[in-house]
Amino acid sequence: MKRTAGEVAEFLGSEVSGDATTVIGSVASLEDAGAGDLSYAEARHVDRVSASRAACILVPGGNFGCRTTIAVANPKAAFARASYWLLPERRPAPGVHPTAVVGGSVMLADDVTIGPWCVIEDGVEVGESTTVQAGCYIGEGCRIGVHSKLHANVVLYPGSCLGDRVIIHAGSVIGSDGFGYVRDGVGYVKFPQMGRLIIEDDVEIGAGTCIDRGSLGSTVIEKGTKLDNLCHVAHNVKVGGTTIIAAQTGISGSCTIGADAVLAGQVGVADHVRIDDGAVVGAQCGIPSGKRVRAGEVFWGTPARPLKDIKIQQAYISRLPKMAKELERLREEVEQLRGERAE
Amino acid sequence: MKRTAGEVAEFLGSEVSGDATTVIGSVASLEDAGAGDLSYAEARHVDRVSASRAACILVPGGNFGCRTTIAVANPKAAFARASYWLLPERRPAPGVHPTAVVGGSVMLADDVTIGPWCVIEDGVEVGESTTVQAGCYIGEGCRIGVHSKLHANVVLYPGSCLGDRVIIHAGSVIGSDGFGYVRDGVGYVKFPQMGRLIIEDDVEIGAGTCIDRGSLGSTVIEKGTKLDNLCHVAHNVKVGGTTIIAAQTGISGSCTIGADAVLAGQVGVADHVRIDDGAVVGAQCGIPSGKRVRAGEVFWGTPARPLKDIKIQQAYISRLPKMAKELERLREEVEQLRGERAE
Amino acid sequence: MKRTAGEVAEFLGSEVSGDATTVIGSVASLEDAGAGDLSYAEARHVDRVSASRAACILVPGGNFGCRTTIAVANPKAAFARASYWLLPERRPAPGVHPTAVVGGSVMLADDVTIGPWCVIEDGVEVGESTTVQAGCYIGEGCRIGVHSKLHANVVLYPGSCLGDRVIIHAGSVIGSDGFGYVRDGVGYVKFPQMGRLIIEDDVEIGAGTCIDRGSLGSTVIEKGTKLDNLCHVAHNVKVGGTTIIAAQTGISGSCTIGADAVLAGQVGVADHVRIDDGAVVGAQCGIPSGKRVRAGEVFWGTPARPLKDIKIQQAYISRLPKMAKELERLREEVEQLRGERAE
Repeated sequence: MKRTAGEVAEFLGSEVSGDATTVIGSVASLEDAGAGDLSYAEARHVDRVSASRAACILVPGGNFGCRTTIAVANPKAAFARASYWLLPERRPAPGVHPTAVVGGSVMLADDVTIGPWCVIEDGVEVGESTTVQAGCYIGEGCRIGVHSKLHANVVLYPGSCLGDRVIIHAGSVIGSDGFGYVRDGVGYVKFPQMGRLIIEDDVEIGAGTCIDRGSLGSTVIEKGTKLDNLCHVAHNVKVGGTTIIAAQTGISGSCTIGADAVLAGQVGVADHVRIDDGAVVGAQCGIPSGKRVRAGEVFWGTPARPLKDIKIQQAYISRLPKMAKELERLREEVEQLRGERAE
Repeated sequence: MKRTAGEVAEFLGSEVSGDATTVIGSVASLEDAGAGDLSYAEARHVDRVSASRAACILVPGGNFGCRTTIAVANPKAAFARASYWLLPERRPAPGVHPTAVVGGSVMLADDVTIGPWCVIEDGVEVGESTTVQAGCYIGEGCRIGVHSKLHANVVLYPGSCLGDRVIIHAGSVIGSDGFGYVRDGVGYVKFPQMGRLIIEDDVEIGAGTCIDRGSLGSTVIEKGTKLDNLCHVAHNVKVGGTTIIAAQTGISGSCTIGADAVLAGQVGVADHVRIDDGAVVGAQCGIPSGKRVRAGEVFWGTPARPLKDIKIQQAYISRLPKMAKELERLREEVEQLRGERAE
Repeated sequence: MKRTAGEVAEFLGSEVSGDATTVIGSVASLEDAGAGDLSYAEARHVDRVSASRAACILVPGGNFGCRTTIAVANPKAAFARASYWLLPERRPAPGVHPTAVVGGSVMLADDVTIGPWCVIEDGVEVGESTTVQAGCYIGEGCRIGVHSKLHANVVLYPGSCLGDRVIIHAGSVIGSDGFGYVRDGVGYVKFPQMGRLIIEDDVEIGAGTCIDRGSLGSTVIEKGTKLDNLCHVAHNVKVGGTTIIAAQTGISGSCTIGADAVLAGQVGVADHVRIDDGAVVGAQCGIPSGKRVRAGEVFWGTPARPLKDIKIQQAYISRLPKMAKELERLREEVEQLRGERAE
């Protein structure tokens, strides 16, 4: 949809500096933008504004001569908002595709879209304006809130509970059995995996991610948290709100991850770990069973330690060749002193 | 299904201490349990028995006053067994869903359930009381034993062979091509991936796990082994029975993993590694190509070494700042002695 | 299909030493081969040729008495080629399965096979002799070249672009949204994920792998590159041609990976990393944000460093117990010298 720079500014609650009638139809990075494109420059990149060919640029302030700009507090966030407003995702037409298999006592609110080859088992509830794409399996008694979207081939195990505006990318598995067995005699007995899985509002889950339901209690992902592709979240884990969990990170059973935390990619969290609100865990970090990770400094390495401690240790390790040489020289000098003494 | 404590005791081959007529309808942890709940206490938690509100508690023995308890050798295992007996998973009605596409020469035993949108290719055999949930693809010539369950959207490549009581969670891919190429001239030629994939009885495979078939030989997962979510098992790997492989662990081509071994989460096993029966490999451990991991001690780190060796080395590394200071002091003292000597 | 050793030699542009009329119907490793099997021996394994029961063996040259052999420059590559020629994968019959849902303006070339339960959205183009197996979802406007194969339950997000002879294994997700958010106020705003995903000719992608499309630009996998199972490739990543990326490796946003590179399993590449053409990165290696990895030596460890540097450092660390003991002895000797001096 085409808009003018003036309309974009109005949407963002700001004003245009330059030509407010400039027409904007798409979005691009500063480098790739051309006529008709909206772009943005963060404070550290304002020097690139003049060279950009974007039709209109969101900036943190400043004067850019004849360029058409809109000053906003957070250009990147404003750009993100304006992008989805300019180019809204086209929802498929509401309705249940004739090929979908819908069980008994299913409650579908207005404007719900159920794609081809979906299975909606008995007792499922789907909120208003939610889209379930092709090939999804929604187990018995699941509940999905409003304005949510399940991409193709997502599986929800029975009883999974999703909030509003939840996005789940293709191929993810939600509410699967936890990995719990009791060794007894020659083999393993499966521990009951009968708990719940609760995903709160505004959570987004990447492609190919697997989240187990609780064994006896619940697994909970709180409001506004984002998980990337191919993550593993085990049974009975609690993840606080607006936490970021990057790709291929695995969280073992019964961990508690706080709110506003950041776990980088390929992090491994052993069972019963507690990560505080606001904590930051670096990529590939391994957190041993039962540990607590506090906020205020970056943790890194396996086993996880404060990054500053690791850097100090690394510096000492780097001095080792010098220390070895120094030790050898001292040895020689002491030998010499002893020799002189013995003369 | 509701049972009395007496019936539970009978099922477990034990006796009730307390009120055998107590009605039990569900299961819960000691902390969460209320009226009607069966719970359990391992030896280290028997002090929590008195405070629990569970209707009946499985205990390793002892006297708990007016509480209704059942003494069993392994309370957690007994609890697991009793849970599935009290609350058996409801199997879907047997039969082939009218939307399933079933090829020629397919042999489906009694009480098989084939869900909607499944594809069962030519020559497939499915044993008695096995369930194949919605959206599964069962390639040509696959064989699945009795009382097995494939959750939604599982893919079996042609010729895969599954035993009895096998459980495969949603979205897993079984029998895919191994990752083998031969560099030739400017590009890669794909090595033949024509071998077999054999999964024996009582194996359970988590969600999103991928197991490749053999290239020329076979990939084999032996009886009673359990794999968690998002694991990777490459071509020609042999995994012994009752081995535990936690989430996101990857096993490269031609490895041999013994029976009764434990591989924690995010372990990486390079090609041609041999892990002995009963070996224990810690989380995120990386085992280099061709190595052998023996039983009897925990291996850890990358490259994998005995945990006790790593701990000793870590202790020495921690002493480095002290060693550096000591070295400096000695240097000064030796300088002084030399100075005095020169006087 | 049965062939003679002579026909195999002709296909490979070589000649038979031994019985050119030997009938060959299948392939096997040197150890497992029997009558009717073609096998191969690389230079380091030619001593095993005499003991093999293979009907015909591809060898790098040499005289093996009465054995039937064919001398070729690269026996393993020749074996791979001959295997697919002897045992060509049987393509399903061309045609669109009656259960497939095909949108408007879809262009399907000759000999295309679309399996059951597929969804082919509006505007999709599929090239000649390409197979799309059961349960695949091909989003709006996707383009797939000729002679490609999508295994079951693959998902292509809208606008994904695949070249010729591309193979994508089951359950992989191609073109999903990147993981990009902007913190603004109390929560996260989703950054636009509106870019493209381009997979060039002869790329093969393992099972359960997830490749995100560009956010504003494009994600590109160039010609002949191979990715294993459960890999993660984030938004705006460029991977050069004929590069090998082993299982469970994750590549963060905006990385550039060169051509002819090798990334072993479980490697983690942070954002904005540049890996040069021909570089080799060892298993589980972690490459920090913004780093550059050069060709010519193997990188390893976290943070990634040249393997030879790590080995030198490891050797010094191993000497620590000896250094500590030496330091103690020197301390004693210096004490003694000082004592004597004070006498």
